[in-house]
Amino acid sequence: MDPPEGPAVALLDQTRLPAAEEVLVCRDLPTLIDAIRRLVVRGAPMLGLAGAYGVALAAFHGDDVEAAAAALAAARPTAVNLSVGARRAREAYDRAAYDQAAVRSAEQAEEGAEQFARRAALDEARCMHQQDAAACEAIAANGLEMIPERARILTHCNTGALVTAGEGTAFGIIRAAHRAGRVRMLWADETRPLLQGGRLTAWEARRAGIGYAVLPDAAAASLFARGEVDIVLVGADRIAADGSVANKIGTYGLAVLARHHGVPFVVAAPVSTIDLSTPDGGAIVIEHRPASEVNHAGGVPVAPADGPAYNPAFDVTPAHLVTAIVTERGTAAPPGPGSLRLLCAGSTSGAGTAAGRQTAPGAVSPAPVER
Amino acid sequence: MDPPEGPAVALLDQTRLPAAEEVLVCRDLPTLIDAIRRLVVRGAPMLGLAGAYGVALAAFHGDDVEAAAAALAAARPTAVNLSVGARRAREAYDRAAYDQAAVRSAEQAEEGAEQFARRAALDEARCMHQQDAAACEAIAANGLEMIPERARILTHCNTGALVTAGEGTAFGIIRAAHRAGRVRMLWADETRPLLQGGRLTAWEARRAGIGYAVLPDAAAASLFARGEVDIVLVGADRIAADGSVANKIGTYGLAVLARHHGVPFVVAAPVSTIDLSTPDGGAIVIEHRPASEVNHAGGVPVAPADGPAYNPAFDVTPAHLVTAIVTERGTAAPPGPGSLRLLCAGSTSGAGTAAGRQTAPGAVSPAPVER
Repeated sequence: MDPPEGPAVALLDQTRLPAAEEVLVCRDLPTLIDAIRRLVVRGAPMLGLAGAYGVALAAFHGDDVEAAAAALAAARPTAVNLSVGARRAREAYDRAAYDQAAVRSAEQAEEGAEQFARRAALDEARCMHQQDAAACEAIAANGLEMIPERARILTHCNTGALVTAGEGTAFGIIRAAHRAGRVRMLWADETRPLLQGGRLTAWEARRAGIGYAVLPDAAAASLFARGEVDIVLVGADRIAADGSVANKIGTYGLAVLARHHGVPFVVAAPVSTIDLSTPDGGAIVIEHRPASEVNHAGGVPVAPADGPAYNPAFDVTPAHLVTAIVTERGTAAPPGPGSLRLLCAGSTSGAGTAAGRQTAPGAVSPAPVER
Repeated sequence: MDPPEGPAVALLDQTRLPAAEEVLVCRDLPTLIDAIRRLVVRGAPMLGLAGAYGVALAAFHGDDVEAAAAALAAARPTAVNLSVGARRAREAYDRAAYDQAAVRSAEQAEEGAEQFARRAALDEARCMHQQDAAACEAIAANGLEMIPERARILTHCNTGALVTAGEGTAFGIIRAAHRAGRVRMLWADETRPLLQGGRLTAWEARRAGIGYAVLPDAAAASLFARGEVDIVLVGADRIAADGSVANKIGTYGLAVLARHHGVPFVVAAPVSTIDLSTPDGGAIVIEHRPASEVNHAGGVPVAPADGPAYNPAFDVTPAHLVTAIVTERGTAAPPGPGSLRLLCAGSTSGAGTAAGRQTAPGAVSPAPVER
């Protein structure tokens, strides 16, 4: 996703990959919300940016900003990042619009209050964009030290540039390891039902020049048995206070296999993924998606079309199966209540998070990093 | 597969299921061989029957029977049942054609030698057909006692009436358990890349009135974590002398998960699947299939179409992860060299195997069981 030029959000259409690289330009909110629902854009960090840019888009369009933020959050109700991003941009808008006491530059003072508020929402989105890119970079640097020489890395789903503002979380580490000459093979689980691994991770790996092979998810076990996996590296959608990790369905099975075969199982995610208000894995609500996703592949029926299917979007890996959680602020190894609380309490220069960053009311956010 | 009426083999086209139920009538050998290559017919026991009926078809067509048997065996070179079935029918043909000293009935004596040999080949195929149906029935009876009340059974791939002459191996047990009112839920792994679970097992379960749900293979782990699997029941493509089980890719991962969660892992297969000449799992050669199967689903690209993929057709589950192997002659629990050798040495009335059955040269095989 690129920052909008004027009132527009440009999205690389993930539903069309790898068959076609098409950019969808959303010039109004309904188009963007429809794109979010159709998974044109997806992935936890990227949905946060979509929410924030969506509010900015609505503001430039003259829409009601509060209604816009609510509509964005409802587009995929379980995607917490979406509502967080929309809320951050809306709050920035509100602060700018209503806090008449804020200190403004001479240039800003010449703008009307409405235009000033619009810019504040866009600046907040760009700030999130920059923060996410910086977090990816720091995660990659922190994770690189866990990758052995000539590593054969197994990953699941898609955690790269398509779902973050940078090179990715787990995939960002893989790219850093590739640049360091340490990646012998990237095993990419295809990740049914929506095939983000085969469609997206393979596409990104090929563009980055990383030697890879796609595999049916159920073939991963035989790679472990053959001793062909040195490390498992995955992302996270939510991390509970006890270190339990909710991530794309199939992650937990890899953790069991990794433990059975004595292979490290490493999770990479920004600190914002750690949710200290969720005490443990049992408290994480799992989204169940429609049977039609399982009963079809690429639009073609692959099971009785109207038949029942078990289709949870995520599973939960208990902390005791996780070797390490790598964040932009450091690594929790082993992860647990103590180490995670320390990570959440800490901060690093230039890579603050929604929870940690303090923004003075009405202050203009840092300049965005244009990619 | 139904026995041929005259010189023809009728196949339910498995590549078209579940979208359409089409019967392909093969009236010559090239059509049948092409159907085998395209997986119109598949599955270990069924391929054995296809090989035997194929030789009979060639004989009725006046083709060279030895060449026909060789061509059938080469259609899918790693499918050992195919060549075993073709060989049995060819040997029956040869015995009948060349053993002029055989005792014949008055009716048989009136036939020409060629016609007599053709009938011998067809009778042998029908004998295999009947033996396989009887083996399925005995496996179901033996396996039923392992199924608890209100069982939630997880299965993988397809092991039912589409791949045997009866109700199936693992699926035959499931049907027997369903009739006994013991099946609360059948979890059917979709079984990528060729989706035999979603396309075929779900189709058979629905026809049999068994409550089922299809799941992405990687979602099975979350079912174990939720305590929703009481027993895993799978088939086998080859069982080594030490009890290692080669079966559809993904089976081994289920065995690891079953062990991790304390759930029984049970294999159902006819004794003919036990290969005492293969000492252990390491000696089983694994067929690797084309990347295109992984890079496509339902004919649609789901990964870079010309990109690399890891696509083994089978994996190997070591004996120590197998709770029991159920055969038509009894159950080996735990499986090991001793128990398997006993099963192979034993015999049961009316359900002999290729290895155990003795056929006098020129004798006419038992009457077929028409379904």
